[in-house]
Amino acid sequence: MISIQNNLGLYTDFYELTMAQGYFLQGKKDEKATFDYFFRTNPYKGGFTVFAGLQDFLDLLANFTFSESDIEYLRGQGLKNNFLTYLKAFTFLGDIFSVSEGEIVFPNEPILRVEGNIIECQLIESMLLNILNFESLIATKAFRIKLVSGETTFSDFGLRRAQGFGALHASRAAIIGGASSTSNVLAGKQLDVPITGTQAHSWILSFDNELEAFRAFAAVNPENTVLLVDTFNTLKTGVPNAIKVAKEMEQKGQRLKAIRLDSGDLAYLSKNTRKMLDNAGLGYVKIIASNQLNEFVVKSLLHDQNAPIDAFGIGTELITGKSDAALDGVYKLAVLNNRPKMKFSENIEKVTLPGKKQLIRYFDENGKFFRDGILCSDENPDEIQTIFHPVYPEKNTNISNLKKQLLTQKVMDKGTTLLKRRNPLHIHNYLKERSKYLPQEHKRFISPHIYKTGISKKLMETRNLLANEQKSQ
Amino acid sequence: MISIQNNLGLYTDFYELTMAQGYFLQGKKDEKATFDYFFRTNPYKGGFTVFAGLQDFLDLLANFTFSESDIEYLRGQGLKNNFLTYLKAFTFLGDIFSVSEGEIVFPNEPILRVEGNIIECQLIESMLLNILNFESLIATKAFRIKLVSGETTFSDFGLRRAQGFGALHASRAAIIGGASSTSNVLAGKQLDVPITGTQAHSWILSFDNELEAFRAFAAVNPENTVLLVDTFNTLKTGVPNAIKVAKEMEQKGQRLKAIRLDSGDLAYLSKNTRKMLDNAGLGYVKIIASNQLNEFVVKSLLHDQNAPIDAFGIGTELITGKSDAALDGVYKLAVLNNRPKMKFSENIEKVTLPGKKQLIRYFDENGKFFRDGILCSDENPDEIQTIFHPVYPEKNTNISNLKKQLLTQKVMDKGTTLLKRRNPLHIHNYLKERSKYLPQEHKRFISPHIYKTGISKKLMETRNLLANEQKSQ
Repeated sequence: MISIQNNLGLYTDFYELTMAQGYFLQGKKDEKATFDYFFRTNPYKGGFTVFAGLQDFLDLLANFTFSESDIEYLRGQGLKNNFLTYLKAFTFLGDIFSVSEGEIVFPNEPILRVEGNIIECQLIESMLLNILNFESLIATKAFRIKLVSGETTFSDFGLRRAQGFGALHASRAAIIGGASSTSNVLAGKQLDVPITGTQAHSWILSFDNELEAFRAFAAVNPENTVLLVDTFNTLKTGVPNAIKVAKEMEQKGQRLKAIRLDSGDLAYLSKNTRKMLDNAGLGYVKIIASNQLNEFVVKSLLHDQNAPIDAFGIGTELITGKSDAALDGVYKLAVLNNRPKMKFSENIEKVTLPGKKQLIRYFDENGKFFRDGILCSDENPDEIQTIFHPVYPEKNTNISNLKKQLLTQKVMDKGTTLLKRRNPLHIHNYLKERSKYLPQEHKRFISPHIYKTGISKKLMETRNLLANEQKSQ
Repeated sequence: MISIQNNLGLYTDFYELTMAQGYFLQGKKDEKATFDYFFRTNPYKGGFTVFAGLQDFLDLLANFTFSESDIEYLRGQGLKNNFLTYLKAFTFLGDIFSVSEGEIVFPNEPILRVEGNIIECQLIESMLLNILNFESLIATKAFRIKLVSGETTFSDFGLRRAQGFGALHASRAAIIGGASSTSNVLAGKQLDVPITGTQAHSWILSFDNELEAFRAFAAVNPENTVLLVDTFNTLKTGVPNAIKVAKEMEQKGQRLKAIRLDSGDLAYLSKNTRKMLDNAGLGYVKIIASNQLNEFVVKSLLHDQNAPIDAFGIGTELITGKSDAALDGVYKLAVLNNRPKMKFSENIEKVTLPGKKQLIRYFDENGKFFRDGILCSDENPDEIQTIFHPVYPEKNTNISNLKKQLLTQKVMDKGTTLLKRRNPLHIHNYLKERSKYLPQEHKRFISPHIYKTGISKKLMETRNLLANEQKSQ
């Protein structure tokens, strides 16, 4: 039976354990490693990515241990006794450096760095990727929607189409990206974020007719009445019945909060509904729209068609990051025993960046994000004049007089978290603030301008030296 | 902090609770309801869907209860005391009828039916959809891969790209669909299915050179040595070093099991690798391939290019059901207090089928799946001569002399499961057996033949009567 057990040590790919045992048996267990987390492509053919999942990952890391029954299971899989004794006492005691959750990041940047012995760094790989890749994917989707919905709020309605228990991570990331609430009650409780929801078609159908169903709902939820108007015919019965009930509510000193459109042409229906409500003196009744929405539809409704919609409920595409469904983040060895390491490739874009690094953001004279620079961590950023295109060094930028900021900070020290727990709504506020400084051309959906990330001369030379060594192997 | 708590009552959309409270306050709590689960579109533009998730859903349903702290949380959200008292004692005590896991099903078929009081039927909707939609999506993806991989096995390598904890449901569904093993150790333990995995690039990089890394791995895993050959250059260093190690292993009476290709052109590389291995007298060494695979790439490699690949590792697309990422399954009220109910729509394809129904499969003279029929549950299937196209009744089929089979059976009785627990590998065997009877033209990827599902005359008349009543409201 599937469950999320208290000990999460088995939440890993088997090869992490095979390799960890190999390191152990080869006497390498105390070798010091540094791994980098980075991704190669912004999701949705977009111009940026919102980093999310850090808090969840650190929380889960505290549970990355092995129960007695886990150990017995692994014994049955052929792992050796002395390594199993080691695993039994295992807990992650390394250091982690990361950019903040809600930060805007770009491809190939070392967003998060793990330092520790090679076994602990290796074992946590799969879980790290599982959480960070997914929450960043969804936070990015949500923020793309937020960029076009603006002051029009939207809620996460995705639980029923979410990928199993991934729903919880997804709802959190949706809030980080800009959803103002979620329909997922468990996420609401665990994350302390607003929940939302009123009625489905089954409510309407459970009464003899629509008007009776609306009246019954208003009777039991007078402070929070939202009426779903498309069960039979939106403009012929749904909206007229809602207006009737709204007027009856007024007699009792109550106010209908909103109606919800859940099918049909949302532009056409919202405009006609707005007119009908306004003509009935119900200018205060809001219009909520749902049904197969995404950032493109929201943009079209609000910007191209001026649909008078006050809030959206967004499900499938938000909660699954459709159609990408995954961020391509990877986790690569960068240092072992103080020696820089890199994965070579015929394709220079896929060569990883060796050594311990720091990620610096440079700002232009207007305070906007201008370039990101990846430097060796033993370099003094104040002394760096120029950063270079990672593949074409003849393309380079003088950044010596620019305002700059180190993006990563230590978030875990010898297994102890240093991260201050933040509500996902606060993380969204940070994202919103940061996004003011992301130039508009990186935010557009169609062929966004590519944000440029450069590397320092020393990093480039280290990489080239290693590449040449490895070629001549 | 996110966790999957023991009480899952909050794993629901808030509107289920708002409506449940409404039913309660309106004195409707003992009204008898029947809901149907069905989907409208096969995923991946395919010709069929594999039903999965039933066992997980029934397991979780047993935990669909509310803790003290859940009740306090809901009190804070404005739910009323007398309803909260009801919820505190809540447990699902209804009946469930379902087709078997691993069955091949088609759009608009009532795959699963829930009967109980309206509150219990309503509250479980979101979780039901969350689990059944997702596992069916992934089982279908996996089976599409299996259809083209045939005797060439494939493993689920997806944990790192899975949607958070959705990984566990996904690994289960991948096995049901045809994966022979998973890299996800927790899934392997909980589901009692084979796990697989050997080494990553980080293992290779942690040694001074590739040959040393290969030797070290063989030394500690002589019975299960799979060497990843693409860290530097597959054909120039990776395969030659693997051959060297294989020969050294032979000296010790050991055998290299396989090499793994993880980048580059897998057709070109596998052919050249096969030649090099064979020329070295290593015909027994297998070739495993991974990297951005899906059913189309597997088909192209094996069928169009005759790539000599013995096994695949498949990650992202398998584990996320990319690019669909969700199945569009819904859950609709069909009966309340013995009165048939349906959601009306301007669009007749979207009108739901009212009343309690049964799903019958008819077989042609060769024993192949021929038609599915949806009948009222009080009809005797032996007396049904003809089934009708749901929208165009002039299209109809005489099925009176055909072999037939009732597809649904009772799987839960008054809250007690009747389902015999089956290993996902056994469920796959059932699917494999059933798929023999699915005509080939429904299995192809490009414009598959549409499988036809008809309804009985009585069901059609019930629907049309209700539609007319509702139109005239």
